[in-house]
Amino acid sequence: MIRTHEAGTLRREHAGHKVTLAGWVARRRDHGGVVFIDLRDASGSAQVVFREEDHAHDLRAEYCVKITGEVRTRPEGNENPDLPTGEIEVVASEVEVLSESAPLPFPIEGGSGVSEEARLRYRYLDIRRQQIAHALRVRSQATYLANEVMREHGFVYVETPALTRSTPEGARDFLVPVRLQPGSWYALPQSPQLFKQLLMVSGLERYYQLARCFRDEDLRADRQPEFTQIDIEMSFVDQDDVIALGEALIGRIWKETLGYELPVPLPRMTYAEAMARYGSDKPDLRFGVELTDLTGYFADTTFRVFQAPYVGAVVMPGGASQTRRELDAWQEWAKSRGARGLAYVLVQEDGALGGPVAKNLSETELAGLAGQTGARPGDAIFFAAGAPAASRDLLGAARLEIGRRCGLIDESQWAFLWIVDAPMFEPVSDEKGGEGGWTPVHHPFTGPKPEWADSFQDHPGEALAYAYDMVCNGMEIGGGSIRIHRAEMQQRVFDVLGISKEEAESKFGWLLEAFKYGPPPHGGIAYGWDRVCMLLAGGESIRDVIAFPKTASGYDPLTGAPSPITVEQRREAGVDAAPKGDRPGADAAPRS
Amino acid sequence: MIRTHEAGTLRREHAGHKVTLAGWVARRRDHGGVVFIDLRDASGSAQVVFREEDHAHDLRAEYCVKITGEVRTRPEGNENPDLPTGEIEVVASEVEVLSESAPLPFPIEGGSGVSEEARLRYRYLDIRRQQIAHALRVRSQATYLANEVMREHGFVYVETPALTRSTPEGARDFLVPVRLQPGSWYALPQSPQLFKQLLMVSGLERYYQLARCFRDEDLRADRQPEFTQIDIEMSFVDQDDVIALGEALIGRIWKETLGYELPVPLPRMTYAEAMARYGSDKPDLRFGVELTDLTGYFADTTFRVFQAPYVGAVVMPGGASQTRRELDAWQEWAKSRGARGLAYVLVQEDGALGGPVAKNLSETELAGLAGQTGARPGDAIFFAAGAPAASRDLLGAARLEIGRRCGLIDESQWAFLWIVDAPMFEPVSDEKGGEGGWTPVHHPFTGPKPEWADSFQDHPGEALAYAYDMVCNGMEIGGGSIRIHRAEMQQRVFDVLGISKEEAESKFGWLLEAFKYGPPPHGGIAYGWDRVCMLLAGGESIRDVIAFPKTASGYDPLTGAPSPITVEQRREAGVDAAPKGDRPGADAAPRS
Repeated sequence: MIRTHEAGTLRREHAGHKVTLAGWVARRRDHGGVVFIDLRDASGSAQVVFREEDHAHDLRAEYCVKITGEVRTRPEGNENPDLPTGEIEVVASEVEVLSESAPLPFPIEGGSGVSEEARLRYRYLDIRRQQIAHALRVRSQATYLANEVMREHGFVYVETPALTRSTPEGARDFLVPVRLQPGSWYALPQSPQLFKQLLMVSGLERYYQLARCFRDEDLRADRQPEFTQIDIEMSFVDQDDVIALGEALIGRIWKETLGYELPVPLPRMTYAEAMARYGSDKPDLRFGVELTDLTGYFADTTFRVFQAPYVGAVVMPGGASQTRRELDAWQEWAKSRGARGLAYVLVQEDGALGGPVAKNLSETELAGLAGQTGARPGDAIFFAAGAPAASRDLLGAARLEIGRRCGLIDESQWAFLWIVDAPMFEPVSDEKGGEGGWTPVHHPFTGPKPEWADSFQDHPGEALAYAYDMVCNGMEIGGGSIRIHRAEMQQRVFDVLGISKEEAESKFGWLLEAFKYGPPPHGGIAYGWDRVCMLLAGGESIRDVIAFPKTASGYDPLTGAPSPITVEQRREAGVDAAPKGDRPGADAAPRS
Repeated sequence: MIRTHEAGTLRREHAGHKVTLAGWVARRRDHGGVVFIDLRDASGSAQVVFREEDHAHDLRAEYCVKITGEVRTRPEGNENPDLPTGEIEVVASEVEVLSESAPLPFPIEGGSGVSEEARLRYRYLDIRRQQIAHALRVRSQATYLANEVMREHGFVYVETPALTRSTPEGARDFLVPVRLQPGSWYALPQSPQLFKQLLMVSGLERYYQLARCFRDEDLRADRQPEFTQIDIEMSFVDQDDVIALGEALIGRIWKETLGYELPVPLPRMTYAEAMARYGSDKPDLRFGVELTDLTGYFADTTFRVFQAPYVGAVVMPGGASQTRRELDAWQEWAKSRGARGLAYVLVQEDGALGGPVAKNLSETELAGLAGQTGARPGDAIFFAAGAPAASRDLLGAARLEIGRRCGLIDESQWAFLWIVDAPMFEPVSDEKGGEGGWTPVHHPFTGPKPEWADSFQDHPGEALAYAYDMVCNGMEIGGGSIRIHRAEMQQRVFDVLGISKEEAESKFGWLLEAFKYGPPPHGGIAYGWDRVCMLLAGGESIRDVIAFPKTASGYDPLTGAPSPITVEQRREAGVDAAPKGDRPGADAAPRS
């Protein structure tokens, strides 16, 4: 090492020692003949004093320097109690500029309001800033902890291919032309789902990987075309085993990075209850506003809007005092989510009910409404009526908006829970094709709950999956299921989904073939590692915990990727070749 | 868990316990009314006894079963001391077939001679075999150990992008079309080299990653288009620091997986010495045959073939007794390596020298030859003459072949060393372009040794790089260098390489720009993780330690990847779109 000490580790007991430091010039103050510099390295920073100007005159911001000097305690009154090294300073005797810095595009210290475009373009400078460096260190710490936990639990770390065949996960695959087999393409995996199931067929029993996944999805605010998941699969387990492991993993990470003790076992809530009470399959339990089901209450209503399969409400505390403009804004908000609007009733301070909906309700309906919904004088009651799923979704979103606008969310709290018993299937939505039919809520390898094992095909709309999602602060951070391992059951699922034998064979024939050879019962879970780390680091976007993220369109302002390719590259890569029937090095016919 | 115990953990002290096991039927023996089954799971296997035929009659090889029964000690004389569970057996009372198995394409136990094509196609069955499962477990253990060592040394685990821009590493990039920016392509990284250097500019100081790398190279026997490296970079370090870290990492892994104590510090050998003594930059030191430089000895020879810039020899112990056919085979061997042949002299038991070359040498030359080369009666002396590099390369290969054919290699031995002081540059070979010029031996960011810092440009053929390779048993397992961090030095390297400002800007402009902002001195190393794990597991190919490897042509017999894509996929992926001038979401002009 070209230094003897790390700047941030110097303390009073080093006084009198001669030290050599190396790092960056973080701040400089000139005081008539004496120059003070904060020297920053990865460990923190220390104050360096130059008694003679000539040592320091060419040291500018972010120069990389090596400094030799003697540690001394600071003169009384000059200590800085906010800094771990605040009791000492280093009196420089030698200075070497290791490299200079051009003027910075934005300041490293204290610069807020820098555009994200600039931050990503100069990401190496952005990472020098305390917050981003901290986020990357937290992520690293969490990764080490995850490895430790999985190792203790006997998991085999297995790397699965990145260059592979399409996986049927719903999103588009990124494709890679293959020069050695012109006309053929690899797909980048959307997840290691099928490989981890194969590893269970292989008898490894406990698989784990920090896996890079690739999904070619459309623009979304906090989307990345590549992301990382902690990918786990286990044999001979039941739902409780996977849940216990998930709690051990997340518990250790939260405890060791944040000192937070996970209250295990975490509460479990059924999907149905979460939808009914919170209008969400990932409820934010840091605040308590809940939905009220008023379908029965309005069963005999004459108000046409409430003559619906579902009527529900959510209360906004203090919402009655909103201005007309604020109430109108809620209508806009609802419309932007695809709803027709958001009906409301205002509970006046004297208990009278106002707002446009009130006049459509009967005396009886009005009289009991506050009691039914728990609204108090001064509150607003928002309604949704229509199909249950869409209505609850709207009320669930309104609930979150209420939480935010009313400051009900305790940001210091961690609210973890499991959502279990999700439906196996959901109806194919009208846009997708009309003619009814079912689509899997998770993926077609998700098993039914044991009580639905024999009958799910008879009641696809009611059958429950053996699936579980871990939710934290209203965000799904992990999800998994017990998989199907019996061919006849898998066939019944395909039948429900309307997947023909040919289609199944062509999409995942290689997995189905593997399942002919004594597959064990198995299940697993995957954690969205970027999200987990974002929560740990207190970031607002997963980009905060990714060293070199891309913009929402998949552009990297740092390297300029993606970029056009040359004619020569295109020719070499075989992009335009027609696929051949035979494959070099493969005796077997192509597998479907 | 659906079982109470793992089969391989049962011991005498479990006798009398009721247990439930789950695993695979590994072997079945029928003994008139009593059926014995070896039940295998990830922990090992245990013998299960069925007293009544009806429990066991439908249990065939590789059925996945759950068995409940009582553990008892085996009757005296029936113990199997070779098996950890050999003192007990489980008397089954309940059996449940969890899943059946179709007839196997090859036997799981004891089946040798299965084609690799079949093994890869049914990889999930191949992994059930002891050897492959063991190899994957060793790899996992080594990965956990690597994480542990790097964590202890304060490294920050950072994930770098897989979808990125071309990196200038010499091989071809795999390319990925970008649907959201039609006409633009990502490249998959050949290594995280440039990103890890950026992370040093970022001030993280110690970076580590288990990194997937992608190289679109031509067919080679043990090639994979994707591979893994343990990727490391450090700031403010010298060569000794990186070497010490590498020894700590490899030392811990060898010690904890194999019980082998690495003799640190490992020997270091200069590149020049390795080439002179072993004809290789990755000498196998498990045996001692060395090259002899005879250039001086033959300085005045009249034998035209030896009137060359370099003449060298290597001795094959006992080689004089080879048949004519064996000696001819050496000629073929040499020709297959691109040489004209392999001149030889046979030292007869009486000390006389025979073979076709002998008659071309003078009395004096013959008289001293055995002494000069160390050959004894009965040995053969092989010669190479010509350009030093090619001749040494041929002799080095002959040395390895001698080691193999003569059984000189002690397979139980570990021979580690560092090769240091490699040349910075080598002449551009004639095939590549003729006109002389220089190409980097490592990559253009490799720094010169300190003593060459100011003068390498004046003597490109002699200048030594600050680079180091770790070699084990004749295989390069890791390599790295101290990088250039000063712009003016980088410019001098580009000048030697004939890289214009424009070309440098277009190839790695974003790295050069980063280096304007106070880059620290830094260096690193990368270990070829597949190779390391292959050595640890005692495999013969890196395919042995890759869960789902591809054939040499990049084909995966399991999934059938790569495969043709549909017209729709092609259209969607934007494969045929012309690049646009503007990029969505990117205000800045494309960076070069």
